[in-house]
Amino acid sequence: MTVRLRLDLAYDGTEFSGWAIQPGRRTVAGSLTEALGRVFGAGGARGLTVAGRTDAGVHATGQVCHIDVDPAAFERLGRAHGSAPPSSPADSLVRRLAGLLPPDVRVRAASVAPFGFDARFAALARRYEYRVTDADGGGDPLQRHRTLHWPRRLDLTALNAASAGLIGEHDFAAFCRRREHATTIRALTELSWRPVGPEVYAATVEADAFCWSMVRSLVGALLTVGDGRRPVDWPARLLTESRRVDDVAVAPAHGLTLVSVTYPPTGAEMSARDGATRKLRSTR
Amino acid sequence: MTVRLRLDLAYDGTEFSGWAIQPGRRTVAGSLTEALGRVFGAGGARGLTVAGRTDAGVHATGQVCHIDVDPAAFERLGRAHGSAPPSSPADSLVRRLAGLLPPDVRVRAASVAPFGFDARFAALARRYEYRVTDADGGGDPLQRHRTLHWPRRLDLTALNAASAGLIGEHDFAAFCRRREHATTIRALTELSWRPVGPEVYAATVEADAFCWSMVRSLVGALLTVGDGRRPVDWPARLLTESRRVDDVAVAPAHGLTLVSVTYPPTGAEMSARDGATRKLRSTR
Repeated sequence: MTVRLRLDLAYDGTEFSGWAIQPGRRTVAGSLTEALGRVFGAGGARGLTVAGRTDAGVHATGQVCHIDVDPAAFERLGRAHGSAPPSSPADSLVRRLAGLLPPDVRVRAASVAPFGFDARFAALARRYEYRVTDADGGGDPLQRHRTLHWPRRLDLTALNAASAGLIGEHDFAAFCRRREHATTIRALTELSWRPVGPEVYAATVEADAFCWSMVRSLVGALLTVGDGRRPVDWPARLLTESRRVDDVAVAPAHGLTLVSVTYPPTGAEMSARDGATRKLRSTR
Repeated sequence: MTVRLRLDLAYDGTEFSGWAIQPGRRTVAGSLTEALGRVFGAGGARGLTVAGRTDAGVHATGQVCHIDVDPAAFERLGRAHGSAPPSSPADSLVRRLAGLLPPDVRVRAASVAPFGFDARFAALARRYEYRVTDADGGGDPLQRHRTLHWPRRLDLTALNAASAGLIGEHDFAAFCRRREHATTIRALTELSWRPVGPEVYAATVEADAFCWSMVRSLVGALLTVGDGRRPVDWPARLLTESRRVDDVAVAPAHGLTLVSVTYPPTGAEMSARDGATRKLRSTR
Protein backbone atom coordinates (compact mmCIF):
# COMPACT_ATOMS: atom_id res chain seq x y z
CA MET A 1 0.00 0.00 0.00
CA THR A 2 1.24 3.47 -0.83
CA VAL A 3 0.07 7.04 -0.31
CA ARG A 4 0.13 9.42 -3.27
CA LEU A 5 1.61 12.86 -2.60
CA ARG A 6 1.03 15.94 -4.71
CA LEU A 7 4.06 18.26 -4.88
CA ASP A 8 3.76 21.85 -6.15
CA LEU A 9 7.09 23.08 -7.39
CA ALA A 10 8.89 26.00 -8.96
CA TYR A 11 12.21 26.22 -10.74
CA ASP A 12 14.54 28.54 -12.56
CA GLY A 13 15.15 26.51 -15.73
CA THR A 14 18.34 28.37 -16.69
CA GLU A 15 20.79 25.74 -15.43
CA PHE A 16 18.60 22.66 -16.05
CA SER A 17 18.49 20.45 -19.17
CA GLY A 18 14.70 20.37 -18.78
CA TRP A 19 12.43 18.22 -16.62
CA ALA A 20 13.12 14.65 -17.75
CA ILE A 21 16.02 12.65 -16.34
CA GLN A 22 18.86 12.23 -18.86
CA PRO A 23 22.16 10.50 -18.11
CA GLY A 24 24.98 12.94 -17.39
CA ARG A 25 22.69 15.98 -17.47
CA ARG A 26 21.42 18.21 -14.65
CA THR A 27 17.61 17.94 -14.81
CA VAL A 28 14.75 18.98 -12.51
CA ALA A 29 13.45 15.42 -12.13
CA GLY A 30 17.01 14.27 -11.44
CA SER A 31 17.54 16.83 -8.65
CA LEU A 32 14.12 16.11 -7.18
CA THR A 33 14.64 12.33 -7.26
CA GLU A 34 17.97 12.74 -5.48
CA ALA A 35 16.43 14.89 -2.71
CA LEU A 36 13.45 12.53 -2.32
CA GLY A 37 15.89 9.64 -2.02
CA ARG A 38 17.51 11.42 0.94
CA VAL A 39 14.11 11.71 2.64
CA PHE A 40 12.48 8.35 1.80
CA GLY A 41 15.55 6.24 1.01
CA ALA A 42 16.65 5.19 -2.49
CA GLY A 43 13.56 3.91 -4.34
CA GLY A 44 11.28 5.02 -1.48
CA ALA A 45 9.49 7.61 -3.64
CA ARG A 46 8.13 5.87 -6.72
CA GLY A 47 6.39 6.79 -9.97
CA LEU A 48 7.41 10.47 -10.20
CA THR A 49 4.91 11.91 -12.73
CA VAL A 50 4.71 15.53 -13.84
CA ALA A 51 1.93 17.67 -15.34
CA GLY A 52 4.14 19.45 -17.88
CA ARG A 53 7.46 18.03 -19.11
CA THR A 54 9.26 21.31 -19.67
CA ASP A 55 12.17 21.62 -22.13
CA ALA A 56 15.70 22.79 -21.31
CA GLY A 57 15.70 26.42 -20.14
CA VAL A 58 11.93 26.62 -19.50
CA HIS A 59 10.90 27.80 -16.00
CA ALA A 60 8.00 26.94 -13.70
CA THR A 61 6.25 28.74 -10.88
CA GLY A 62 3.26 26.35 -10.70
CA GLN A 63 4.46 22.90 -11.82
CA VAL A 64 2.71 19.88 -10.26
CA CYS A 65 3.96 16.32 -9.87
CA HIS A 66 3.04 13.24 -7.85
CA ILE A 67 4.96 10.47 -6.13
CA ASP A 68 3.85 7.31 -4.30
CA VAL A 69 5.44 6.60 -0.91
CA ASP A 70 5.07 4.23 2.02
CA PRO A 71 2.39 5.66 4.39
CA ALA A 72 4.43 4.85 7.52
CA ALA A 73 7.54 6.59 6.13
CA PHE A 74 5.42 9.66 5.34
CA GLU A 75 3.82 9.78 8.81
CA ARG A 76 7.24 9.53 10.47
CA LEU A 77 8.20 12.88 8.87
CA GLY A 78 5.78 14.63 11.22
CA ARG A 79 7.45 13.39 14.41
CA ALA A 80 9.55 15.73 16.50
CA HIS A 81 13.27 15.29 15.93
CA GLY A 82 16.20 17.28 17.31
CA SER A 83 15.06 20.80 18.18
CA ALA A 84 12.17 20.78 15.67
CA PRO A 85 8.68 20.47 17.21
CA PRO A 86 6.18 18.01 15.70
CA SER A 87 4.27 19.30 12.67
CA SER A 88 2.22 17.88 9.82
CA PRO A 89 4.15 15.34 7.69
CA ALA A 90 3.46 17.48 4.59
CA ASP A 91 4.91 20.65 6.17
CA SER A 92 7.91 18.69 7.39
CA LEU A 93 8.48 17.34 3.90
CA VAL A 94 8.48 20.86 2.42
CA ARG A 95 11.05 22.01 5.02
CA ARG A 96 13.24 18.93 4.59
CA LEU A 97 13.25 19.33 0.80
CA ALA A 98 14.07 23.06 1.12
CA GLY A 99 17.32 22.05 2.81
CA LEU A 100 18.12 19.26 0.34
CA LEU A 101 17.22 20.76 -3.04
CA PRO A 102 19.50 23.17 -4.92
CA PRO A 103 18.37 26.83 -4.71
CA ASP A 104 17.03 26.89 -8.27
CA VAL A 105 14.30 24.32 -7.56
CA ARG A 106 11.83 24.58 -4.68
CA VAL A 107 8.95 22.39 -3.53
CA ARG A 108 6.47 25.06 -2.48
CA ALA A 109 3.76 22.78 -1.09
CA ALA A 110 3.12 19.10 -0.44
CA SER A 111 -0.19 17.37 0.28
CA VAL A 112 -1.80 13.94 0.30
CA ALA A 113 -3.41 13.74 -3.14
CA PRO A 114 -7.19 13.27 -3.37
CA PHE A 115 -8.48 9.88 -4.54
CA GLY A 116 -7.92 9.44 -8.26
CA PHE A 117 -5.30 12.19 -8.56
CA ASP A 118 -2.75 11.84 -11.33
CA ALA A 119 -0.54 14.89 -11.96
CA ARG A 120 -0.49 14.20 -15.70
CA PHE A 121 -3.74 12.47 -16.64
CA ALA A 122 -6.12 14.23 -14.26
CA ALA A 123 -5.02 17.73 -15.35
CA LEU A 124 -7.78 19.75 -17.02
CA ALA A 125 -5.54 22.58 -18.22
CA ARG A 126 -1.94 23.83 -18.32
CA ARG A 127 -1.23 27.54 -18.23
CA TYR A 128 2.01 29.13 -19.46
CA GLU A 129 3.32 32.68 -19.55
CA TYR A 130 5.77 34.00 -22.14
CA ARG A 131 7.61 37.27 -21.43
CA VAL A 132 9.17 39.53 -24.02
CA THR A 133 10.58 43.05 -23.95
CA ASP A 134 11.15 45.36 -26.91
CA ALA A 135 13.12 47.93 -24.87
CA ASP A 136 16.07 49.36 -26.82
CA GLY A 137 18.36 48.91 -23.84
CA GLY A 138 17.30 45.27 -23.38
CA GLY A 139 14.96 45.56 -20.39
CA ASP A 140 15.34 44.85 -16.67
CA PRO A 141 18.55 42.86 -16.04
CA LEU A 142 16.98 41.31 -12.92
CA GLN A 143 14.37 39.66 -15.20
CA ARG A 144 16.66 38.81 -18.11
CA HIS A 145 16.73 35.08 -17.31
CA ARG A 146 13.01 34.79 -17.96
CA THR A 147 12.36 37.51 -20.54
CA LEU A 148 13.11 37.41 -24.28
CA HIS A 149 14.61 40.59 -25.73
CA TRP A 150 12.99 41.28 -29.11
CA PRO A 151 15.01 43.64 -31.31
CA ARG A 152 11.97 45.22 -33.02
CA ARG A 153 9.03 47.26 -31.69
CA LEU A 154 5.97 45.15 -30.82
CA ASP A 155 2.34 46.18 -31.33
CA LEU A 156 0.16 44.85 -28.50
CA THR A 157 -3.06 45.30 -30.52
CA ALA A 158 -1.70 43.23 -33.42
CA LEU A 159 -0.44 40.54 -31.01
CA ASN A 160 -3.88 40.23 -29.43
CA ALA A 161 -5.79 40.31 -32.74
CA ALA A 162 -3.64 37.51 -34.16
CA SER A 163 -3.90 35.54 -30.91
CA ALA A 164 -7.71 35.67 -30.88
CA GLY A 165 -7.79 33.82 -34.20
CA LEU A 166 -6.07 30.80 -32.65
CA ILE A 167 -8.40 30.18 -29.71
CA GLY A 168 -10.58 27.07 -29.84
CA GLU A 169 -10.16 23.37 -30.66
CA HIS A 170 -7.95 23.02 -33.72
CA ASP A 171 -5.31 20.80 -35.25
CA PHE A 172 -2.15 22.66 -34.22
CA ALA A 173 0.08 20.49 -36.47
CA ALA A 174 1.72 23.61 -37.97
CA PHE A 175 2.99 24.54 -34.48
CA CYS A 176 4.03 21.07 -33.26
CA ARG A 177 7.22 19.12 -33.62
CA ARG A 178 6.26 15.87 -35.27
CA ARG A 179 5.85 12.71 -33.19
CA GLU A 180 4.66 9.44 -34.73
CA HIS A 181 1.03 8.44 -33.97
CA ALA A 182 0.50 11.46 -31.70
CA THR A 183 -2.51 13.69 -32.20
CA THR A 184 -1.92 17.43 -32.61
CA ILE A 185 -5.55 18.41 -31.92
CA ARG A 186 -5.72 20.61 -28.83
CA ALA A 187 -8.27 22.94 -27.21
CA LEU A 188 -6.64 26.35 -26.78
CA THR A 189 -8.74 28.16 -24.16
CA GLU A 190 -6.71 31.34 -23.70
CA LEU A 191 -4.10 33.26 -25.66
CA SER A 192 -3.73 36.95 -24.85
CA TRP A 193 -1.04 39.56 -24.25
CA ARG A 194 -0.86 42.24 -21.59
CA PRO A 195 1.72 44.83 -20.54
CA VAL A 196 3.47 43.78 -17.30
CA GLY A 197 6.07 46.55 -17.02
CA PRO A 198 7.71 49.30 -19.04
CA GLU A 199 8.07 47.86 -22.58
CA VAL A 200 7.48 44.32 -21.23
CA TYR A 201 4.63 42.11 -22.47
CA ALA A 202 3.43 38.75 -21.21
CA ALA A 203 1.39 36.23 -23.18
CA THR A 204 -0.89 33.92 -21.21
CA VAL A 205 -1.42 30.62 -23.03
CA GLU A 206 -3.79 27.98 -21.72
CA ALA A 207 -4.91 24.67 -23.23
CA ASP A 208 -6.05 21.23 -22.10
CA ALA A 209 -2.58 20.08 -23.08
CA PHE A 210 0.19 21.15 -25.46
CA CYS A 211 2.11 19.15 -28.00
CA TRP A 212 5.89 19.44 -28.13
CA SER A 213 7.17 23.02 -28.74
CA MET A 214 3.61 24.29 -29.28
CA VAL A 215 3.67 27.29 -26.90
CA ARG A 216 7.02 28.51 -28.19
CA SER A 217 5.92 28.03 -31.81
CA LEU A 218 2.69 29.98 -31.24
CA VAL A 219 4.72 32.78 -29.63
CA GLY A 220 7.33 32.64 -32.40
CA ALA A 221 4.63 33.07 -35.06
CA LEU A 222 2.84 35.84 -33.13
CA LEU A 223 6.02 37.89 -32.60
CA THR A 224 6.45 38.21 -36.39
CA VAL A 225 2.92 39.65 -36.49
CA GLY A 226 3.62 41.91 -33.50
CA ASP A 227 6.63 43.47 -35.20
CA GLY A 228 4.74 44.01 -38.47
CA ARG A 229 6.49 41.45 -40.68
CA ARG A 230 3.44 39.19 -41.08
CA PRO A 231 -0.28 39.97 -41.50
CA VAL A 232 -2.56 39.61 -38.48
CA ASP A 233 -4.43 36.60 -39.96
CA TRP A 234 -1.27 34.61 -40.81
CA PRO A 235 -1.05 32.45 -37.65
CA ALA A 236 -4.74 31.42 -37.89
CA ARG A 237 -4.33 30.53 -41.57
CA LEU A 238 -1.68 27.97 -40.56
CA LEU A 239 -4.37 25.97 -38.70
CA THR A 240 -5.28 24.38 -42.05
CA GLU A 241 -1.82 22.81 -42.36
CA SER A 242 -1.49 19.12 -41.52
CA ARG A 243 2.20 19.23 -40.63
CA ARG A 244 4.80 21.49 -39.06
CA VAL A 245 5.41 24.74 -40.96
CA ASP A 246 9.08 25.67 -41.39
CA ASP A 247 8.28 29.42 -41.44
CA VAL A 248 7.24 29.22 -37.81
CA ALA A 249 10.26 29.91 -35.57
CA VAL A 250 10.32 28.36 -32.10
CA ALA A 251 10.74 31.23 -29.61
CA PRO A 252 13.67 30.82 -27.18
CA ALA A 253 13.06 28.72 -24.06
CA HIS A 254 14.07 31.31 -21.45
CA GLY A 255 10.96 33.51 -21.98
CA LEU A 256 8.63 30.63 -21.05
CA THR A 257 7.25 29.74 -17.59
CA LEU A 258 4.66 27.11 -16.63
CA VAL A 259 2.49 29.08 -14.19
CA SER A 260 -0.32 26.71 -13.21
CA VAL A 261 -2.09 23.40 -13.74
CA THR A 262 -5.82 22.98 -13.16
CA TYR A 263 -7.42 19.80 -11.71
CA PRO A 264 -11.05 18.85 -11.10
CA PRO A 265 -12.27 19.85 -7.65
CA THR A 266 -13.24 16.34 -6.45
CA GLY A 267 -11.84 12.84 -6.50
CA ALA A 268 -14.70 11.35 -8.53
CA GLU A 269 -14.31 13.95 -11.26
CA MET A 270 -10.56 13.34 -11.07
CA SER A 271 -10.94 9.67 -11.96
CA ALA A 272 -13.39 10.48 -14.75
CA ARG A 273 -10.92 12.98 -16.21
CA ASP A 274 -8.08 10.48 -15.98
CA GLY A 275 -10.06 7.85 -17.90
CA ALA A 276 -11.19 10.32 -20.54
CA THR A 277 -7.66 11.66 -21.07
CA ARG A 278 -6.07 8.22 -21.44
CA LYS A 279 -8.79 7.21 -23.95
CA LEU A 280 -8.39 10.43 -25.95
CA ARG A 281 -4.61 10.18 -26.18
CA SER A 282 -4.82 6.58 -27.42
CA THR A 283 -7.58 7.01 -30.04
CA ARG A 284 -7.10 10.45 -31.60
CA MET B 1 32.71 73.00 -23.65
CA THR B 2 30.90 69.79 -22.71
CA VAL B 3 27.34 68.52 -22.75
CA ARG B 4 26.04 66.74 -19.64
CA LEU B 5 24.16 63.47 -20.25
CA ARG B 6 21.79 61.81 -17.82
CA LEU B 7 21.85 58.00 -17.98
CA ASP B 8 19.12 55.89 -16.37
CA LEU B 9 20.39 52.44 -15.62
CA ALA B 10 19.48 49.10 -14.14
CA TYR B 11 21.63 46.24 -12.94
CA ASP B 12 21.56 42.83 -11.35
CA GLY B 13 24.05 43.37 -8.52
CA THR B 14 24.71 39.66 -7.95
CA GLU B 15 28.01 39.52 -9.82
CA PHE B 16 29.19 43.07 -9.09
CA SER B 17 31.35 44.30 -6.19
CA GLY B 18 29.03 47.31 -5.95
CA TRP B 19 28.99 50.59 -7.86
CA ALA B 20 32.34 52.20 -7.16
CA ILE B 21 35.44 51.32 -9.20
CA GLN B 22 37.93 49.17 -7.25
CA PRO B 23 41.13 47.76 -8.70
CA GLY B 24 40.81 44.10 -9.68
CA ARG B 25 37.08 43.97 -8.94
CA ARG B 26 34.11 43.80 -11.31
CA THR B 27 32.02 46.90 -10.54
CA VAL B 28 29.09 48.65 -12.23
CA ALA B 29 31.00 51.92 -12.68
CA GLY B 30 33.93 49.93 -14.07
CA SER B 31 31.79 48.13 -16.67
CA LEU B 32 30.03 51.37 -17.61
CA THR B 33 33.30 53.31 -17.92
CA GLU B 34 34.70 50.62 -20.21
CA ALA B 35 31.61 50.70 -22.48
CA LEU B 36 31.56 54.52 -22.55
CA GLY B 37 35.26 54.46 -23.50
CA ARG B 38 34.36 52.34 -26.54
CA VAL B 39 31.76 54.92 -27.60
CA PHE B 40 33.51 58.22 -26.77
CA GLY B 41 37.16 57.11 -26.70
CA ALA B 42 39.23 56.64 -23.54
CA GLY B 43 38.65 59.67 -21.31
CA GLY B 44 35.92 60.99 -23.65
CA ALA B 45 33.18 60.55 -21.00
CA ARG B 46 34.26 62.47 -17.90
CA GLY B 47 33.02 63.00 -14.34
CA LEU B 48 30.85 59.87 -13.97
CA THR B 49 28.64 60.69 -10.94
CA VAL B 50 25.90 58.49 -9.51
CA ALA B 51 22.80 59.19 -7.40
CA GLY B 52 23.20 56.16 -5.10
CA ARG B 53 26.52 54.38 -4.57
CA THR B 54 25.17 50.87 -4.07
CA ASP B 55 27.11 48.23 -2.13
CA ALA B 56 28.21 44.83 -3.43
CA GLY B 57 25.20 42.66 -4.28
CA VAL B 58 22.64 45.49 -4.25
CA HIS B 59 20.52 45.83 -7.39
CA ALA B 60 19.03 48.81 -9.23
CA THR B 61 16.10 49.28 -11.56
CA GLY B 62 16.09 53.11 -11.44
CA GLN B 63 19.69 54.24 -10.83
CA VAL B 64 20.70 57.61 -12.31
CA CYS B 65 24.15 58.91 -13.21
CA HIS B 66 25.64 61.70 -15.31
CA ILE B 67 28.67 62.11 -17.55
CA ASP B 68 30.11 65.08 -19.43
CA VAL B 69 31.05 64.57 -23.08
CA ASP B 70 32.16 66.56 -26.09
CA PRO B 71 29.02 67.93 -27.86
CA ALA B 72 30.35 67.12 -31.34
CA ALA B 73 31.13 63.52 -30.37
CA PHE B 74 27.60 63.17 -28.97
CA GLU B 75 25.94 64.61 -32.09
CA ARG B 76 27.94 62.25 -34.30
CA LEU B 77 26.21 59.28 -32.63
CA GLY B 78 22.97 60.26 -34.39
CA ARG B 79 24.41 59.95 -37.90
CA ALA B 80 23.50 57.02 -40.12
CA HIS B 81 26.17 54.35 -40.20
CA GLY B 82 26.17 50.97 -41.91
CA SER B 83 22.60 49.76 -42.29
CA ALA B 84 21.28 51.82 -39.34
CA PRO B 85 19.16 54.85 -40.29
CA PRO B 86 19.84 58.21 -38.57
CA SER B 87 18.20 58.62 -35.16
CA SER B 88 18.54 60.87 -32.12
CA PRO B 89 22.05 60.79 -30.58
CA ALA B 90 20.50 59.72 -27.24
CA ASP B 91 18.64 56.75 -28.77
CA SER B 92 21.79 55.75 -30.65
CA LEU B 93 23.78 55.88 -27.42
CA VAL B 94 21.28 53.54 -25.68
CA ARG B 95 21.50 51.06 -28.55
CA ARG B 96 25.31 51.25 -28.77
CA LEU B 97 25.66 50.68 -25.02
CA ALA B 98 23.20 47.74 -25.17
CA GLY B 99 25.67 45.99 -27.46
CA LEU B 100 28.74 46.91 -25.40
CA LEU B 101 27.61 46.39 -21.80
CA PRO B 102 27.44 42.96 -20.13
CA PRO B 103 23.88 41.57 -19.85
CA ASP B 104 23.62 42.29 -16.12
CA VAL B 105 23.83 46.08 -16.57
CA ARG B 106 21.63 48.05 -18.96
CA VAL B 107 21.41 51.75 -19.77
CA ARG B 108 17.64 52.07 -20.17
CA ALA B 109 17.53 55.74 -21.26
CA ALA B 110 19.89 58.59 -22.09
CA SER B 111 19.09 62.29 -22.40
CA VAL B 112 20.76 65.68 -22.44
CA ALA B 113 20.53 66.77 -18.79
CA PRO B 114 18.62 69.97 -17.98
CA PHE B 115 20.63 73.01 -16.87
CA GLY B 116 21.95 72.55 -13.34
CA PHE B 117 21.48 68.77 -13.28
CA ASP B 118 23.79 66.79 -11.00
CA ALA B 119 22.88 63.13 -10.52
CA ARG B 120 24.07 63.23 -6.91
CA PHE B 121 23.60 66.75 -5.56
CA ALA B 122 20.37 67.69 -7.37
CA ALA B 123 18.53 64.55 -6.17
CA LEU B 124 15.56 65.27 -3.89
CA ALA B 125 14.94 61.66 -2.86
CA ARG B 126 16.19 58.09 -3.25
CA ARG B 127 13.71 55.22 -3.16
CA TYR B 128 14.65 51.61 -2.39
CA GLU B 129 12.72 48.36 -2.23
CA TYR B 130 13.63 45.42 0.00
CA ARG B 131 12.09 42.01 -0.75
CA VAL B 132 11.72 39.18 1.72
CA THR B 133 9.83 35.87 1.70
CA ASP B 134 8.89 33.73 4.70
CA ALA B 135 7.74 30.77 2.56
CA ASP B 136 8.76 27.43 4.08
CA GLY B 137 9.99 26.17 0.73
CA GLY B 138 12.08 29.32 0.18
CA GLY B 139 9.94 31.19 -2.35
CA ASP B 140 10.09 31.66 -6.11
CA PRO B 141 13.48 30.48 -7.44
CA LEU B 142 13.20 32.92 -10.35
CA GLN B 143 13.27 35.79 -7.82
CA ARG B 144 15.83 34.31 -5.41
CA HIS B 145 18.64 36.65 -6.52
CA ARG B 146 16.69 39.66 -5.26
CA THR B 147 14.63 38.25 -2.39
CA LEU B 148 15.81 37.42 1.13
CA HIS B 149 14.50 34.15 2.56
CA TRP B 150 13.54 34.71 6.22
CA PRO B 151 13.32 31.48 8.24
CA ARG B 152 10.52 32.70 10.56
CA ARG B 153 6.93 33.80 9.89
CA LEU B 154 6.55 37.56 9.39
CA ASP B 155 3.64 39.70 10.59
CA LEU B 156 2.87 42.46 8.07
CA THR B 157 0.91 44.51 10.63
CA ALA B 158 3.82 44.52 13.09
CA LEU B 159 6.27 45.41 10.30
CA ASN B 160 4.16 48.41 9.30
CA ALA B 161 3.49 49.56 12.87
CA ALA B 162 7.22 49.54 13.69
CA SER B 163 8.04 51.25 10.38
CA ALA B 164 5.60 54.13 10.99
CA GLY B 165 7.56 55.08 14.13
CA LEU B 166 10.69 55.76 12.08
CA ILE B 167 9.24 58.19 9.53
CA GLY B 168 10.36 61.82 9.77
CA GLU B 169 13.60 63.75 10.22
CA HIS B 170 15.74 61.99 12.83
CA ASP B 171 19.31 61.21 13.70
CA PHE B 172 19.63 57.67 12.31
CA ALA B 173 23.05 57.10 13.97
CA ALA B 174 21.90 53.76 15.42
CA PHE B 175 21.35 52.50 11.85
CA CYS B 176 24.46 53.95 10.19
CA ARG B 177 27.98 52.65 9.84
CA ARG B 178 30.19 55.32 11.34
CA ARG B 179 32.04 57.79 9.11
CA GLU B 180 34.09 60.62 10.57
CA HIS B 181 32.54 64.09 10.38
CA ALA B 182 29.49 62.82 8.47
CA THR B 183 26.01 63.74 9.66
CA THR B 184 23.55 60.90 10.26
CA ILE B 185 20.47 63.15 10.27
CA ARG B 186 18.14 62.16 7.46
CA ALA B 187 14.52 62.83 6.47
CA LEU B 188 12.79 59.46 6.04
CA THR B 189 9.68 60.17 3.97
CA GLU B 190 8.37 56.65 3.43
CA LEU B 191 8.80 53.25 5.07
CA SER B 192 6.02 50.74 4.51
CA TRP B 193 5.53 47.06 3.68
CA ARG B 194 3.11 45.46 1.24
CA PRO B 195 2.50 41.92 -0.01
CA VAL B 196 3.83 41.48 -3.56
CA GLY B 197 3.22 37.77 -4.05
CA PRO B 198 2.42 34.59 -2.13
CA GLU B 199 4.37 34.94 1.16
CA VAL B 200 6.51 37.73 -0.35
CA TYR B 201 6.69 41.22 1.18
CA ALA B 202 8.36 44.35 -0.12
CA ALA B 203 9.42 47.34 1.96
CA THR B 204 9.49 50.72 0.22
CA VAL B 205 12.03 53.03 1.83
CA GLU B 206 12.42 56.65 0.72
CA ALA B 207 14.56 59.47 2.13
CA ASP B 208 16.32 62.59 0.93
CA ALA B 209 19.50 60.54 1.23
CA PHE B 210 20.76 57.53 3.18
CA CYS B 211 23.91 57.09 5.20
CA TRP B 212 26.00 53.95 4.71
CA SER B 213 24.10 50.68 5.38
CA MET B 214 21.05 52.59 6.61
CA VAL B 215 18.36 50.89 4.50
CA ARG B 216 19.67 47.41 5.28
CA SER B 217 19.98 48.26 9.01
CA LEU B 218 16.41 49.59 9.15
CA VAL B 219 15.20 46.39 7.44
CA GLY B 220 17.36 44.23 9.72
CA ALA B 221 15.83 45.82 12.82
CA LEU B 222 12.27 45.65 11.45
CA LEU B 223 12.52 41.94 10.57
CA THR B 224 13.18 41.09 14.22
CA VAL B 225 9.93 42.92 15.04
CA GLY B 226 8.10 41.22 12.17
CA ASP B 227 9.00 37.75 13.45
CA GLY B 228 7.98 38.61 17.03
CA ARG B 229 11.40 38.68 18.70
CA ARG B 230 11.38 42.44 19.42
CA PRO B 231 8.59 44.78 20.53
CA VAL B 232 6.97 47.03 17.92
CA ASP B 233 8.42 50.23 19.45
CA TRP B 234 12.03 48.96 19.60
CA PRO B 235 13.29 50.43 16.28
CA ALA B 236 11.89 53.91 17.04
CA ARG B 237 13.45 53.85 20.52
CA LEU B 238 16.86 53.49 18.87
CA LEU B 239 16.47 56.95 17.33
CA THR B 240 17.72 58.40 20.66
CA GLU B 241 21.09 56.67 20.25
CA SER B 242 24.01 58.77 19.08
CA ARG B 243 26.02 55.93 17.59
CA ARG B 244 25.58 52.61 15.79
CA VAL B 245 23.76 49.95 17.81
CA ASP B 246 25.34 46.48 17.67
CA ASP B 247 21.97 44.75 18.17
CA VAL B 248 20.88 45.99 14.76
CA ALA B 249 21.80 43.42 12.10
CA VAL B 250 22.45 44.61 8.57
CA ALA B 251 20.05 42.71 6.29
CA PRO B 252 21.75 40.89 3.37
CA ALA B 253 22.46 42.92 0.23
CA HIS B 254 20.65 40.75 -2.30
CA GLY B 255 17.14 41.74 -1.07
CA LEU B 256 17.79 45.43 -1.83
CA THR B 257 17.05 47.32 -5.06
CA LEU B 258 17.37 51.06 -5.78
CA VAL B 259 14.11 51.70 -7.65
CA SER B 260 14.06 55.44 -8.33
CA VAL B 261 15.65 58.84 -7.78
CA THR B 262 13.60 62.04 -7.77
CA TYR B 263 14.85 65.38 -9.18
CA PRO B 264 13.26 68.84 -9.23
CA PRO B 265 11.16 69.44 -12.34
CA THR B 266 13.03 72.50 -13.64
CA GLY B 267 16.63 73.58 -14.15
CA ALA B 268 16.39 76.58 -11.81
CA GLU B 269 15.09 74.43 -8.94
CA MET B 270 17.81 71.94 -9.80
CA SER B 271 20.58 74.46 -9.18
CA ALA B 272 18.95 75.62 -5.95
CA ARG B 273 18.77 72.02 -4.74
CA ASP B 274 22.39 71.38 -5.67
CA GLY B 275 23.56 74.42 -3.67
CA ALA B 276 21.39 73.55 -0.67
CA THR B 277 22.59 69.93 -0.63
CA ARG B 278 26.27 70.80 -0.82
CA LYS B 279 25.85 73.35 2.01
CA LEU B 280 23.91 70.89 4.19
CA ARG B 281 26.43 68.07 3.77
CA SER B 282 29.33 70.36 4.72
CA THR B 283 27.75 71.99 7.80
CA ARG B 284 25.60 69.34 9.53
